[in-house]
Amino acid sequence: MPDAADLPLIGAAALRARAAARVLRTLPTDTKNAALAAMADALVERTDEVLAANAADVEAAAADGTPEAILDRLRLDADRVADVAAALRELVALPDPVGDVVRGSTLPNGLQLREVRVPLGVVGIVYEARPNVTVDAAGLCLKSGNAALLRGSASAFRTNTALVAVLTETAAKAGLPEGSVELLPADRASVGELLSARGFVDVVIPRGGASLIERVVRESTVPVIETGVGNCHVYVDASADPAMAEAIVLNAKTHRVSVCNAAETLLVHRDVPFLPRLLSALAEAGVTLHGDETARAAHSAVVPATDQDWATEYLSMDMAVRVVDDLPQALEHIARWGTGHSEAIVADSARAIAEFTAGVDAAAVLVNASTRFTDGGEFGFGAEIGISTQKLHARGPLGLPELTSTTYVVTGSGHVR
Amino acid sequence: MPDAADLPLIGAAALRARAAARVLRTLPTDTKNAALAAMADALVERTDEVLAANAADVEAAAADGTPEAILDRLRLDADRVADVAAALRELVALPDPVGDVVRGSTLPNGLQLREVRVPLGVVGIVYEARPNVTVDAAGLCLKSGNAALLRGSASAFRTNTALVAVLTETAAKAGLPEGSVELLPADRASVGELLSARGFVDVVIPRGGASLIERVVRESTVPVIETGVGNCHVYVDASADPAMAEAIVLNAKTHRVSVCNAAETLLVHRDVPFLPRLLSALAEAGVTLHGDETARAAHSAVVPATDQDWATEYLSMDMAVRVVDDLPQALEHIARWGTGHSEAIVADSARAIAEFTAGVDAAAVLVNASTRFTDGGEFGFGAEIGISTQKLHARGPLGLPELTSTTYVVTGSGHVR
Repeated sequence: MPDAADLPLIGAAALRARAAARVLRTLPTDTKNAALAAMADALVERTDEVLAANAADVEAAAADGTPEAILDRLRLDADRVADVAAALRELVALPDPVGDVVRGSTLPNGLQLREVRVPLGVVGIVYEARPNVTVDAAGLCLKSGNAALLRGSASAFRTNTALVAVLTETAAKAGLPEGSVELLPADRASVGELLSARGFVDVVIPRGGASLIERVVRESTVPVIETGVGNCHVYVDASADPAMAEAIVLNAKTHRVSVCNAAETLLVHRDVPFLPRLLSALAEAGVTLHGDETARAAHSAVVPATDQDWATEYLSMDMAVRVVDDLPQALEHIARWGTGHSEAIVADSARAIAEFTAGVDAAAVLVNASTRFTDGGEFGFGAEIGISTQKLHARGPLGLPELTSTTYVVTGSGHVR
Repeated sequence: MPDAADLPLIGAAALRARAAARVLRTLPTDTKNAALAAMADALVERTDEVLAANAADVEAAAADGTPEAILDRLRLDADRVADVAAALRELVALPDPVGDVVRGSTLPNGLQLREVRVPLGVVGIVYEARPNVTVDAAGLCLKSGNAALLRGSASAFRTNTALVAVLTETAAKAGLPEGSVELLPADRASVGELLSARGFVDVVIPRGGASLIERVVRESTVPVIETGVGNCHVYVDASADPAMAEAIVLNAKTHRVSVCNAAETLLVHRDVPFLPRLLSALAEAGVTLHGDETARAAHSAVVPATDQDWATEYLSMDMAVRVVDDLPQALEHIARWGTGHSEAIVADSARAIAEFTAGVDAAAVLVNASTRFTDGGEFGFGAEIGISTQKLHARGPLGLPELTSTTYVVTGSGHVR
């Protein structure tokens, strides 16, 4: 465990967060809910303050030549602030996982065993442009009894500072301890300190692109929950219904291309008779197709694919297409190139469905449904802090229970061994 | 993800294990159980072979001047081999976690959501002298559908080689894939390769002393489940029953001193009138007491304690003793010096018990019971691969369910967003 003095950029904030976490873990749900509701109200009341800070961020970013798509992610308006506040109010309505008894029994010797959910403690979040993550992440952490150490991007620093000022001032009035939400400096070095702050920080969650996640995983001695990279596949089996296959593939690819649960590669069984029509539908929807030789023979719009295409999370209107000999070859392809996010099969054969479901190692397997359903909201879990693509702790959408650990409480009456 | 060629010592084994994991995850429980039972039989049948290898290890270690206590941990005899085989048979009787539906629902749109337990994949175990871990770890991994990469100590390499030969030959006959259990070379460099084998290995579990665990946590880019270091406390409240306090403190300290759930520090409320008697009982049991000034004033046998004593997991007949002003001071002490393993309170006051339970952040909190109860066997979980002291994934005894991840299986009938 490092000394706080070894963390010049974040040490003071980490110590405050650690002290706050010891109080937060004991707060009743009502106190946390009242604070969240007050924060939502305060955000709406102080919208002008937030928008002024945001305008300065957007102006500076525009002056730096930031592309419009990124500016749009950075930009807030009154409606977006209201949406962020509404998301906090939705958290109020969700059940508090802290104190849930996950399992319990009375042992043969009379000891009472209960496994109880407790907060993780201090949660570090490293994220990119969108300022709404500041409020979402703080809200999820607080509802689950955790202190939040937020490290947002430099381009949103003024906005994040304004948002966190509203949150912390309101939190203090509502009885939450100082340090419950801390915004870290946006230097590159502050990420390094956060990743080395083992003993101060209980978990780091990166939310952003592949390079951010890769850095966090490589450098961190703090446990990490990896989120987000989704090189998702849709496999169309020989038994698939043509109309269903077309609807699912189109939806998985084109419904929203910039998200991790969008499909990137289409795998089609060689006996599928409707491959040309499927590729036409994609091409007509504006998708650029990168395919193997068989796919290219089936449709003139398909450009040649390389291994790079199988590996790429396009996040754009591009899709790789491979025709496979059989289902095992599709499974091989997914095992080699997939990122363990969401893998879909379209099939009518129960045997094919069972083989695919058993053979795919991913956070989510979708049977006759679009990959776009892998989402905390769609799953009915409420808000999510990301989608975990790792196998430890939590896999798939990370909701409130995934922001907790457990403690075994063992109650005896003088029991000894 | 590294290339297997970058892993000269373990790459081939890791590739075999990864291929095996894809088969193991689909095997029915019956197949796995039959293999475990056959392994147990084969170990007993081939005891002589194992003991011959073990005798060579023990002889070499003795010639190197290894202390008798370590030799004893290394040494096998027919009874110990039989115990190891019996532990495998106990695994047969435990429920298979793979395929368990952790939660399931039908969403409002008709999608069927099921969260299903799946194996982690390839589990790396790094452990020290005891050869029984080789068989225990392999058995736990196989029962939970995982391939095992075992990296035991150099001093037990002949024994481990003989044990793994019995296991793998029997596993192959029972229909398990090649690579299901792999013994890695015992070089120091093989640990480094294992810790960098992200993409080949899904989790690394260190079983051993603090320095091994520290190395694994610091170096590993593979996710780690931290186990074992237990600087456990017993807090005796002012409301404690004297006889109960004495029985629990003695048991927690002296029942077995070399284990992680043994108590190392005694914290006593300053209003406890029976402190001298409690210290006498410990001294008479042969415990060397390292105490603060108040403890030293209460009993002549107490030697002065320093911060080093609060920090030390003695694993011996030593105990640190501190007299605290109140329960919050005990919680402060535990938060500062504890390792998050097992913390006990002896008290009759419901308020004190509630405050302690809410305030301690550890894998287990024991109320009027010895710390020695934090154990997979005692909790009724059956075999354990260690006791996790981290907050992510699993905390406390690691049984079969803790060696699994989950996949969301989402079944629709053409669902799109």
